[in-house]
Amino acid sequence: MKHLLFLLLLLPCLANAQNTLRSVSSPDKKVSVTIGLNKTGEPFYKVSFNGKTVVDWSRLGFTTKETDLRSGYTLMNAQTSTFDETWKPVWGEVAQIRNHYNELRYTMGHQQLGSALTIQFRVFNDGIGFRYDFLTKDNEGKKLTFTDELTEFQMTGDHTAWWIPGDFDSNEHVYTTCKISEIDCARYNREHAIATQHIVKMKNTQTPITMRMADGTHITIAEAALADFGALHLETDVKKLKFKAFLISTADSTVKSVNTLPFHTPWRVVLLSKDAAGILQSKLIMNLNEPCKIQDVSWIKPQKYVGVWWEMHVGLATWDYEATADMMAATGREVKGKHGANTENVLRYVDFAAQYGFDGVLVEGWNTGWKDWFGKMKDEVFDFAKPYPDFDMDRISRYAKEKGVKIISHHETSAAVPSYERQMDAAYAYMKKNGQNAVKTGYVGKIIPRGEWHDGQWMNNHYLRVAERTAQNQIMVDMHEPVRPSGWHRTWPNWLASEATRGQEFNAWSTGNPPEHECILPFTRSLGGPIDYTPGIFEVRMSAYDPKKTEVVHTTVAKQLALYVTLYSPLQMAADLPENYEKRLDVFQFIRDVPVDWDDTKILEASIGDYMTVARRQKGAQNWFLGSITDENPHKFEARLDFLAPGKTYVATIYADGKGAHWKDNPYPVSIRSIEVKKGDKLLLDLAAGGGCAVSFKVK
Amino acid sequence: MKHLLFLLLLLPCLANAQNTLRSVSSPDKKVSVTIGLNKTGEPFYKVSFNGKTVVDWSRLGFTTKETDLRSGYTLMNAQTSTFDETWKPVWGEVAQIRNHYNELRYTMGHQQLGSALTIQFRVFNDGIGFRYDFLTKDNEGKKLTFTDELTEFQMTGDHTAWWIPGDFDSNEHVYTTCKISEIDCARYNREHAIATQHIVKMKNTQTPITMRMADGTHITIAEAALADFGALHLETDVKKLKFKAFLISTADSTVKSVNTLPFHTPWRVVLLSKDAAGILQSKLIMNLNEPCKIQDVSWIKPQKYVGVWWEMHVGLATWDYEATADMMAATGREVKGKHGANTENVLRYVDFAAQYGFDGVLVEGWNTGWKDWFGKMKDEVFDFAKPYPDFDMDRISRYAKEKGVKIISHHETSAAVPSYERQMDAAYAYMKKNGQNAVKTGYVGKIIPRGEWHDGQWMNNHYLRVAERTAQNQIMVDMHEPVRPSGWHRTWPNWLASEATRGQEFNAWSTGNPPEHECILPFTRSLGGPIDYTPGIFEVRMSAYDPKKTEVVHTTVAKQLALYVTLYSPLQMAADLPENYEKRLDVFQFIRDVPVDWDDTKILEASIGDYMTVARRQKGAQNWFLGSITDENPHKFEARLDFLAPGKTYVATIYADGKGAHWKDNPYPVSIRSIEVKKGDKLLLDLAAGGGCAVSFKVK
Repeated sequence: MKHLLFLLLLLPCLANAQNTLRSVSSPDKKVSVTIGLNKTGEPFYKVSFNGKTVVDWSRLGFTTKETDLRSGYTLMNAQTSTFDETWKPVWGEVAQIRNHYNELRYTMGHQQLGSALTIQFRVFNDGIGFRYDFLTKDNEGKKLTFTDELTEFQMTGDHTAWWIPGDFDSNEHVYTTCKISEIDCARYNREHAIATQHIVKMKNTQTPITMRMADGTHITIAEAALADFGALHLETDVKKLKFKAFLISTADSTVKSVNTLPFHTPWRVVLLSKDAAGILQSKLIMNLNEPCKIQDVSWIKPQKYVGVWWEMHVGLATWDYEATADMMAATGREVKGKHGANTENVLRYVDFAAQYGFDGVLVEGWNTGWKDWFGKMKDEVFDFAKPYPDFDMDRISRYAKEKGVKIISHHETSAAVPSYERQMDAAYAYMKKNGQNAVKTGYVGKIIPRGEWHDGQWMNNHYLRVAERTAQNQIMVDMHEPVRPSGWHRTWPNWLASEATRGQEFNAWSTGNPPEHECILPFTRSLGGPIDYTPGIFEVRMSAYDPKKTEVVHTTVAKQLALYVTLYSPLQMAADLPENYEKRLDVFQFIRDVPVDWDDTKILEASIGDYMTVARRQKGAQNWFLGSITDENPHKFEARLDFLAPGKTYVATIYADGKGAHWKDNPYPVSIRSIEVKKGDKLLLDLAAGGGCAVSFKVK
Repeated sequence: MKHLLFLLLLLPCLANAQNTLRSVSSPDKKVSVTIGLNKTGEPFYKVSFNGKTVVDWSRLGFTTKETDLRSGYTLMNAQTSTFDETWKPVWGEVAQIRNHYNELRYTMGHQQLGSALTIQFRVFNDGIGFRYDFLTKDNEGKKLTFTDELTEFQMTGDHTAWWIPGDFDSNEHVYTTCKISEIDCARYNREHAIATQHIVKMKNTQTPITMRMADGTHITIAEAALADFGALHLETDVKKLKFKAFLISTADSTVKSVNTLPFHTPWRVVLLSKDAAGILQSKLIMNLNEPCKIQDVSWIKPQKYVGVWWEMHVGLATWDYEATADMMAATGREVKGKHGANTENVLRYVDFAAQYGFDGVLVEGWNTGWKDWFGKMKDEVFDFAKPYPDFDMDRISRYAKEKGVKIISHHETSAAVPSYERQMDAAYAYMKKNGQNAVKTGYVGKIIPRGEWHDGQWMNNHYLRVAERTAQNQIMVDMHEPVRPSGWHRTWPNWLASEATRGQEFNAWSTGNPPEHECILPFTRSLGGPIDYTPGIFEVRMSAYDPKKTEVVHTTVAKQLALYVTLYSPLQMAADLPENYEKRLDVFQFIRDVPVDWDDTKILEASIGDYMTVARRQKGAQNWFLGSITDENPHKFEARLDFLAPGKTYVATIYADGKGAHWKDNPYPVSIRSIEVKKGDKLLLDLAAGGGCAVSFKVK
């Protein structure tokens, strides 16, 4: 009766709803979802965690052009089931993942829809996922033009939130930490607006958004398996502390998505954990994606790479042969460099990669078109099978093959996407002919088709087409400027990583990323999939390249090492110039040693935006690697080495912030020492302001 | 002084303009253009013909987002030159074409543009063309975002005009005949609106628009060589009797076109003739297009074809295997037919084509996707390399090859254009593998990319890409629902024809095309290039297929024959069902005989919207063919056979309207007789209401 009373008192619209209420709990009973219809037939749900309501009664549903789907539902049936499997990712943070949930399929009839709508809830121990499944009985082929998603997430307090603006075109934002009631993109914009942004509503945030409740419970709202739909943003009701789904629109601003039945939406996700570490450990988003669709995965290799890239960001080289285009030009400054992707320079990188054990050499600026890459809105920009005259593809391919190094191709599209789609077959054939098996794509600028958005339905389908088409060609892909990931790397593990974040590059030519940035990313953007963040900058002051420059990487050098462990990705660049690494080969040793694939991961401590310490076990070995980072404040942590294998002695090589290190005043000192340790020992990590610590534990 | 006085009195804005006035005349001096700048530096032009002003002082120029290009021009220089060449089209109405004009390049400086703008005028004996050429000195790579074209055409009287609405998405309109002052799409819409139209301004007309002045002078405003730009519509000032250029926009309705310098616009064209026949004879639009870009043209063949097509329009067959999609379904009626493109049916057409000497058999509905072709706005609809299970591609290809008949492939895209572009390479490879060398493309429905228009910049570039890509694959192309042609068949003669008009099909399931329709098309739509109109319907009453149907083709059967001569195209369908032809093989003989390529053409008489009589000489032969058609009124014409070769006797076979024939009451009678004639003889043509007459003259 208490439950019903609550309904009757607090949610009058749910009167008589007791007949339609159905619940489902997680396998460990700690997470529970209840769904029901109010008297006008509108569906609502709520979520509790550890006995507390974490999402209070919240609306579900859609509006469409064809049919009024807001209300008028009747409960047809509600089926529950249990699923429990353990699967092995092709690569990842852990060797195997358990996918264990109870499911409730809440099926509603709707006269105007002419068929049924099932809301499918999956309840895991660490959160929930739900999606809308439009059934097709007598309705196959029916078009639905979605104009709004009504899904809400009613929070139960004014939680602390880590968020970036709900931007149609970019995820390259600085995170804000504030109360839900303070969310405001306008305020954010006064400090952090970026040139490529398109923010239509000032209370809208991107997902994933992560929050901390007063009692320490952490909640993330996210989505999984985004396909054939606009990306999920959240419109914040700062008074009611409620989020409402807001979908990126199509080129027609009144239309969010056009779909043909059968169709189900992507999953809407609420991650729940008693602490921040639990959020990091969740595999719920991957579990909501489909299993791997690639039969033979033997060619997919996590990897470390170097490349002709950072020099365009610091102003030493240009992408184009005509020497007009680098990030200086893109940010309105004078261009001084020459074309970077010339044969001699590329061969130099190949030598470097071969000498220090890198798998690949990324080459940006190898193909024609760069002169017009930026801001021209041209239909046709690049030719993906035509190198610049000073890039000798035959010689480079031959040399790289001899050296056992792979050239990573680069397909910047300037967001002229149909042009890329027209050339995909030819481009991939050209790559294969030249012995390449990995490509970095890029989508800088306003999208063509005009009016479409980076995170809208059309582009979301494009990214998946690229994942599938590259897989068919046994090519790995790293996408820059795509939609933020939503776990698709389970299904297409050749899609190694994405940018879709404010990456390292911002430090070279903008106000950069604050020291806390990398302490927030794992709890937000990374939850959907790996970032190609490009860590490893040793020369952190841009004045080294031009005395007039004031840009710096907001880091100590030791922290740059730690990022290889804290920011999980199967694709990690050593982003700095070879000459900078060759000056500090002792420090560089950690980057050479650190793996990119793991059998196990332990979160030793985590506080979002403040600090985190992670230990990971090398794939197929007993070696462990530890990364610890902090924000602008110093941080000390006594790590218990309980994770090490029992009975073994390890040589721990500790790359710590050197004496007096400080991200701003003294970023360079790194103290390196090796000691012997074993399971159960303690290791004091002493991080400088903006600093970090990286440790390799190798079995003696 | 008189000239200057005129300027000072009537166009005060041109005061002091005498310093900037420059003129250029046609080789025969009958057409003259003057261009000048007013005191705020705005360019104006005027055109005279036979001593009369036909386009009075009219504005020139553009607005762009980047630069205020309205005014502020200064004359830098004006260069004149003369050009005279004679070239041979790959196919056409005549064996050779003279391209003879005087050119004035009027080059203006503009401070904000930072470079020069040349307005390039070419003055021919039959009209003028001009375009804007944005010079690139120090300006290469600069982006211009065109927001409006300011070009005007100030008429000098309230001429009679033949026009269709300025529609972003369709040219499939009935023509209106009215005074300029009466142009009104709203009024048009009350009778003739079509489902696919998108008309944004009610005084906008499509080009080409043709007008008759009180003195009989004919004027056509058109464009040539449309590329990388929105199509040209005209916004009518019904009070000032002035037209202003109105460009189809991009997906961003505030943007007409985005271009990168160097760039020149398409040509704006004014055709001038003392009579309607002169308009028909003009080759000015082709002359303004670039010469043929295909080296080896030996594989390009004008042709006649039959096909699995009309049966979907009359309700006997469906496009899709699932038997849900035909024009009955598309117009909201019951579907009764079964899948038309089944192997047995196609083989029947192959037999028919082989027996009666047709080159090709078009097959629509052979490939998967048709169930969702209409109105779904799906990104992916068709697979252009996957036949339906009842279409045995191997067997059909083999059989057609044995019979010496080519299967014409069909690529309906549902206007999901990026999907087609992604598949083009594969689709053309599949065609070639199956022995096909001609394709009919289709763009039914709203365009994907969403927000783009059939006649906008993005699509105009697409059509040219298809022309080029098919040419590279030695494939001929016939486009349905593209932008209306602007002479590109000179450059890409593999682009045999386009629909881009209200074709025969409308007669099967709508109010149809009035009898005058085919008497207007040659003077308007056809001026840009050949139509795939699909004449030759013998069973003109749809009640023959379903007693409930009232649709008819507004024609006599004899007129259907005459259309093969009057509506010039290198691609002509015999559109009716084989069984209808087999019932009237005597009448069908003309369709078998009539060629699709010509060495000479004579316009014997022409009155727009009323009647026209044309004689054409068969390519490489002395045989002539005559076609005469009329509108809803009977028409008599005594044709002088002056065009026949001297000293030869011809057998003239005359297919005339039979006794009592009338398009409405008695469309079927055809009287066939053969007589011997020679040059200088007279032949009385006696056309029924809505009728026609077709004559073959074969050397005895």
